[in-house]
Amino acid sequence: MAAAEEFFPGIARIQYEPSAGPGDVLCFKHYNADEVLMGRTMEDWLRFSVCYWHSFCGTGADPFGFQTLHRPWNEGTPMESAKKRLHAAFEFFTKLGVKYYTFHDRDMAPEGSTLEESNKNLDEITDLALQLQNQTGVKVLWVTCNLFAHPRYMNGAATNPDCHVLAYAGAQVKKGLDVAKKLGAENFVFWGGREGFLSIHNTDVAAELNHMAAFFKMAVKYKEKIGAKFQFLIEPKPKEPCRHQYDYDAMSVIGFLKHYGLDSHFKLNIEPNHTTLAGHSYEHDIVMASAFGMLGSVDSNTGSPDLGWDTDQFPMDIRNVTMVMKTIIEQGGLQPGGLNFDAKVRRESTDLEDLFIAHVGAMDAFARGLRNAVRIIEDGIVSEMMKKRYSSFSHGFGLKVVEGSSSLEDMEAFIKQNGEPKITSGKQEKYELIFNHYI
Amino acid sequence: MAAAEEFFPGIARIQYEPSAGPGDVLCFKHYNADEVLMGRTMEDWLRFSVCYWHSFCGTGADPFGFQTLHRPWNEGTPMESAKKRLHAAFEFFTKLGVKYYTFHDRDMAPEGSTLEESNKNLDEITDLALQLQNQTGVKVLWVTCNLFAHPRYMNGAATNPDCHVLAYAGAQVKKGLDVAKKLGAENFVFWGGREGFLSIHNTDVAAELNHMAAFFKMAVKYKEKIGAKFQFLIEPKPKEPCRHQYDYDAMSVIGFLKHYGLDSHFKLNIEPNHTTLAGHSYEHDIVMASAFGMLGSVDSNTGSPDLGWDTDQFPMDIRNVTMVMKTIIEQGGLQPGGLNFDAKVRRESTDLEDLFIAHVGAMDAFARGLRNAVRIIEDGIVSEMMKKRYSSFSHGFGLKVVEGSSSLEDMEAFIKQNGEPKITSGKQEKYELIFNHYI
Amino acid sequence: MAAAEEFFPGIARIQYEPSAGPGDVLCFKHYNADEVLMGRTMEDWLRFSVCYWHSFCGTGADPFGFQTLHRPWNEGTPMESAKKRLHAAFEFFTKLGVKYYTFHDRDMAPEGSTLEESNKNLDEITDLALQLQNQTGVKVLWVTCNLFAHPRYMNGAATNPDCHVLAYAGAQVKKGLDVAKKLGAENFVFWGGREGFLSIHNTDVAAELNHMAAFFKMAVKYKEKIGAKFQFLIEPKPKEPCRHQYDYDAMSVIGFLKHYGLDSHFKLNIEPNHTTLAGHSYEHDIVMASAFGMLGSVDSNTGSPDLGWDTDQFPMDIRNVTMVMKTIIEQGGLQPGGLNFDAKVRRESTDLEDLFIAHVGAMDAFARGLRNAVRIIEDGIVSEMMKKRYSSFSHGFGLKVVEGSSSLEDMEAFIKQNGEPKITSGKQEKYELIFNHYI
Amino acid sequence: MAAAEEFFPGIARIQYEPSAGPGDVLCFKHYNADEVLMGRTMEDWLRFSVCYWHSFCGTGADPFGFQTLHRPWNEGTPMESAKKRLHAAFEFFTKLGVKYYTFHDRDMAPEGSTLEESNKNLDEITDLALQLQNQTGVKVLWVTCNLFAHPRYMNGAATNPDCHVLAYAGAQVKKGLDVAKKLGAENFVFWGGREGFLSIHNTDVAAELNHMAAFFKMAVKYKEKIGAKFQFLIEPKPKEPCRHQYDYDAMSVIGFLKHYGLDSHFKLNIEPNHTTLAGHSYEHDIVMASAFGMLGSVDSNTGSPDLGWDTDQFPMDIRNVTMVMKTIIEQGGLQPGGLNFDAKVRRESTDLEDLFIAHVGAMDAFARGLRNAVRIIEDGIVSEMMKKRYSSFSHGFGLKVVEGSSSLEDMEAFIKQNGEPKITSGKQEKYELIFNHYI
Repeated sequence: MAAAEEFFPGIARIQYEPSAGPGDVLCFKHYNADEVLMGRTMEDWLRFSVCYWHSFCGTGADPFGFQTLHRPWNEGTPMESAKKRLHAAFEFFTKLGVKYYTFHDRDMAPEGSTLEESNKNLDEITDLALQLQNQTGVKVLWVTCNLFAHPRYMNGAATNPDCHVLAYAGAQVKKGLDVAKKLGAENFVFWGGREGFLSIHNTDVAAELNHMAAFFKMAVKYKEKIGAKFQFLIEPKPKEPCRHQYDYDAMSVIGFLKHYGLDSHFKLNIEPNHTTLAGHSYEHDIVMASAFGMLGSVDSNTGSPDLGWDTDQFPMDIRNVTMVMKTIIEQGGLQPGGLNFDAKVRRESTDLEDLFIAHVGAMDAFARGLRNAVRIIEDGIVSEMMKKRYSSFSHGFGLKVVEGSSSLEDMEAFIKQNGEPKITSGKQEKYELIFNHYI
Repeated sequence: MAAAEEFFPGIARIQYEPSAGPGDVLCFKHYNADEVLMGRTMEDWLRFSVCYWHSFCGTGADPFGFQTLHRPWNEGTPMESAKKRLHAAFEFFTKLGVKYYTFHDRDMAPEGSTLEESNKNLDEITDLALQLQNQTGVKVLWVTCNLFAHPRYMNGAATNPDCHVLAYAGAQVKKGLDVAKKLGAENFVFWGGREGFLSIHNTDVAAELNHMAAFFKMAVKYKEKIGAKFQFLIEPKPKEPCRHQYDYDAMSVIGFLKHYGLDSHFKLNIEPNHTTLAGHSYEHDIVMASAFGMLGSVDSNTGSPDLGWDTDQFPMDIRNVTMVMKTIIEQGGLQPGGLNFDAKVRRESTDLEDLFIAHVGAMDAFARGLRNAVRIIEDGIVSEMMKKRYSSFSHGFGLKVVEGSSSLEDMEAFIKQNGEPKITSGKQEKYELIFNHYI
Repeated sequence: MAAAEEFFPGIARIQYEPSAGPGDVLCFKHYNADEVLMGRTMEDWLRFSVCYWHSFCGTGADPFGFQTLHRPWNEGTPMESAKKRLHAAFEFFTKLGVKYYTFHDRDMAPEGSTLEESNKNLDEITDLALQLQNQTGVKVLWVTCNLFAHPRYMNGAATNPDCHVLAYAGAQVKKGLDVAKKLGAENFVFWGGREGFLSIHNTDVAAELNHMAAFFKMAVKYKEKIGAKFQFLIEPKPKEPCRHQYDYDAMSVIGFLKHYGLDSHFKLNIEPNHTTLAGHSYEHDIVMASAFGMLGSVDSNTGSPDLGWDTDQFPMDIRNVTMVMKTIIEQGGLQPGGLNFDAKVRRESTDLEDLFIAHVGAMDAFARGLRNAVRIIEDGIVSEMMKKRYSSFSHGFGLKVVEGSSSLEDMEAFIKQNGEPKITSGKQEKYELIFNHYI
Repeated sequence: MAAAEEFFPGIARIQYEPSAGPGDVLCFKHYNADEVLMGRTMEDWLRFSVCYWHSFCGTGADPFGFQTLHRPWNEGTPMESAKKRLHAAFEFFTKLGVKYYTFHDRDMAPEGSTLEESNKNLDEITDLALQLQNQTGVKVLWVTCNLFAHPRYMNGAATNPDCHVLAYAGAQVKKGLDVAKKLGAENFVFWGGREGFLSIHNTDVAAELNHMAAFFKMAVKYKEKIGAKFQFLIEPKPKEPCRHQYDYDAMSVIGFLKHYGLDSHFKLNIEPNHTTLAGHSYEHDIVMASAFGMLGSVDSNTGSPDLGWDTDQFPMDIRNVTMVMKTIIEQGGLQPGGLNFDAKVRRESTDLEDLFIAHVGAMDAFARGLRNAVRIIEDGIVSEMMKKRYSSFSHGFGLKVVEGSSSLEDMEAFIKQNGEPKITSGKQEKYELIFNHYI
């Protein structure tokens, strides 16, 4: 294997060509990395990241079908293939013009027959990753440990009924934290795919939650010990593979973290496809997490609202991404988080170029979302309507409520004096029409 | 109107007749109030309650159709009708043999044209209610305020963008708390039907959540001031009438309460029909709330899993009610909460006797659920399987995890010494088969 | 009451002002009625219609709340109010610039205490409607009979277990057909809101389907007898108010119609909010009905994908309406059907102007959808990709399949000769990216 | 490999032991094969079948995890393993006491590198299968072809945009029909897992439906040619793996079949887990297919109503299976169809005995369902209530409706003479309570 091998021949660095035609799919028509909006470059607002597992490890297999995606980097022994994959990935990041990537420990390097061997594999491959990062300037948005694919985790990792499995997960996370530090990852994600239950009949929920909290506390302690600075993130998902996952949605995780006194150590990595599976609207958990000061990062993807499982499609709905970007701008950006494309090409999209097309489509969609959100905010029409809508809380009786100095007795007195409130239109359709103006 | 008027002529006190035939629907075949199971009477375990709104105020109107239920107690002026309704209700409670009822302020007494008039109506009707309670021994399980039906609340009560509406809600709750104390209610429920949003476009989520927390704090303070002893309960519901309700499910409410430091003042009133609308299994929120020590009471009803709105049907599924009763027994009962039938006869069930049949069916279902759960627990087969499943946490390394004294470094050392954990079957089907033995 | 009374003072005829600003919500920025696209005016492609029930009869009541919308035309006796309402509606149609409206018999004129009285009311009000139609040029897109709101229909109309109710429904439909003919309606719709079941336990599905088919046959016969030319349409809906409605979705209705030999007499009126409630994507039933040659008309509205009931919101999603218009153009238009706004302002949208804003927003959205679809079709890039994708069926072996002259034996021979087919990328992301170019 | 090898050592023939205790999970407590109910043995009513794919080919892999189930019969070359698997399966069928099994062509014998090789493999393995069938008396309930797992089918089989793939599917089905005939299969199933679309953007629905119909017509012709007597069945599923599958649910398939004149050649194989994914109640499609005379067979399994994908769990809900058996008895049985357990042990159920426990649990559940349904029918209380409910259609005006000899004019005359119908309670809760008596 030579570093010089090219995995995407015929595809050059993707350029910004705003006037390209409808059939031109290998250029950006909206994403212009260095363009400044509201004092920051598009690149800084969007902080795009490519995910390693779907885009470089995905096979196209699904529960009803075999592998469809045969990638040129999957050749040789597992370790040889791991290295080729890394070269292919960095070629992709660079040609696409994305500055971040994310990975699970087991995507990066193959699991060995012992923990020691797995760790050794990881050391070897991450040496190469570090070298490629330094060569290209591409960085790690976040690292996560795969605590769900190996059969040992079938009944849970941190919530497994067998403490031996818990220990394995802990050992794996210890190494994951070391690797994250080594590579300068800006965040570290926990996704508890098997932390939940298949059947309530064989599950002691209270015990499992206690074990999960204990597990997180150990991770916090070890992170502090090694002096790592990355942000811990929990990624909620309601179900799949579990019937019920404890980290159901943003509010479930917030409730859990606050119950166990862990909330100052974690933020949330919200994936909209998980949000919609939890029965919420696309932007719901992003808005909710942000309202509680807990929005750390976003796994940018989408599902189809008529489907009940995680499809991890590339996000291309302009309305949705506008809503996401509006929330992100309003909280001042996502740093150190970003927009990670936890998305995969369809298993029927078997051409190598489809990997580029999909990312270009999603990046351009988000660039439009950013532009739209900026226009909405800079125009100020919506914010002015909102300010007026809530104006009663900025003075007098309303201000007392905000300040916590009113009482039910005050309220009764206020009503005895002022009588029935006026009915005020919510004007939802007007807001919708105006929103449509911008998209 | 004379107290002697009989509203359910031809229907006598419902009796326990365990050997009655399939067509006998006006007797209990399973519910035997005084029978003792696991040291407590069935009545004490089940603490059944009848809800006032559906059963005595319901008209059968739905969004696509007019009133179908014409009740003999709805005659005369609003206040006359309110009194007749109360007599009818107490006749019903007594004949059915249920010791508790629940109501909204506005079910009990008609809203007047001013707050003062509404309060006066409430005083007058609750005087009669108190008298009937004393005569019959029937008690109030909980009171709640209707903060959603009046147009003033269309944009929310505690979360209304207009503080004037907030004040009205506060004044109304103040009176509701007074009434609850007067009638000796054992709990007081908040259901925030309009506390959420229809459109994210016109909503300031963070502000509304702050206002809602401020509102709850005032209620806590006033309850303490009047020396009331009832338990505060919040009833989660994910949506309907709102598109999104802040009290989405058990974990959302727990997260909210803990964030605002309110968790010691509230427990949850779980309604399984709301739980299933939130995308969970029937028993999920009961199990979850119980695991967090927050299960206060249950609104016993059911939906149809294929429908996306609240149908408030009478709970008759033996499997489901067995799961509920098992959880309740395991936490030592529901006191001061109970099983309130927040359920309504179908609008097509227009016979007066249908009201009895529906309650009898649900009470008998729960009695079967209780008997099943008691047998499961007393047999001990399932609990023995569970004990074995989690046994690794009762000693050695597992116990250190439970006690919070282990670390990631310990875990790594444990794995380096002990290697790969053993794969252990979860045996879900065995648990299911055994569960079926009991139902 | 004088015809000269103005119900929407201060609102003038809505104009096309393509360069209006974001806050200008009482003008069209995209809908330009007379502009010609692909050989037809926008008005002809879109055939907008306003629905009478939501926009002129709606009260804003919901299952959890009382009336919020107090309209100036609801004054006086029921018949006086019916006339005012008609004047208000025609003022609205005219100011909005819409050429069609739709109504249920019972929206138009109040139900009397007997069938005769109801019919008389209908005669009187439709005389006025006809006069206003002639004055304004506004026409009836379709008439339908309300066979679901009156308590007599609570257990179904054509599928009621009591033939007496069936007879009532038949008598009502007979009059409805007469009225439709009198007013020159271009279509007649059947929506079977109560044709289904609440409980399978008390339902004889086969019998009820037979009765429903018999009912439709009588309607066909009577329509022919009176020489009416309007198109019969069935509007599918999966559930609500029923737990299960027989006309679940497009394919269910097609199956029913073909089973009973009724398919040449009916087409479908597809409502996307019903489609999504049936678990399909927004455009699914429109595409499906069109593929089977059965798409007759569209009830243009939308739901929220995270909600499980019919919200009848104004359609404003540009992606969705583009998909709808593309399908409509590809089948050569909807005539004699149209785009009927079976949509209601939110109950919180209490200002009279909200009724205009909502319609303007939806009309502009559809105008954008039409423009987008025209560009997609005229550019030909997508259709060229599609043509290539299916090209193997235009000649040789594929053509034999299309013509029905191939056999399994031929297929086996073909494979023995040609071996394994080539894997061809489906290129979904490329299609999505290109689609996004147009919206 | 020796036929004498035992794959389930320690497990003997499962016996009927009605008084076994709750922890005894390797015996039937309800299923007594030879017991006669309503003139037929339980075995004849239930016609249980074991599915080959889940129970003998399943690996426990899921989209988030690797293989967990390591079976002793998966050893050696693919062909050796195929033979071991067959022996293991027949040992299982015999020990379990089930008389039928079902399989996909590719479960039975490994796919070769050419069609010819695949067919040869199939010939060799089915020779052995035939021999084992003759030895044990176990028969084939149905055969089906796997037209979804191989990458060639990723864009569809009969609906693939490339006619070359269609040809491959046809060649494979030809062989499948030959095999089915050879083994004396009583039915042949088509499940169109990839017959639908992932994206409407790249799909020509009308063309694909035409191709699918042409494909079915060829299968009908070939079946007739070889003189096969098995029943053709189509198995509906709404989605997964496709976003939308054309055979969405029972009514969709009925509509399709009738449109293309194929309905006399096919019946339906209903899988309740698919039914619930389509948004219906568990029993819906069984009831619907039966009402249209199209219920041919049942894939007995269940999902969890809170999950949006096919979990293929073993059916253990007594209420549900009672409803299914009631429908089956009422249509006079399922012959030549049966109850095929298209169900898999959870991937966490890694013990070999779990395979037995799961089947025993499901068979016992269905035996209870059968017993319950027989009691409901024999008691006659429910049928008497139903007869009364629909009695108006057995004479006079109602009978004219049934006979198709009434008209809208008759109906109007009837109402003018008889006025308003009486309101009659639907008595849903009474039906539910009585139903509960039997379960």
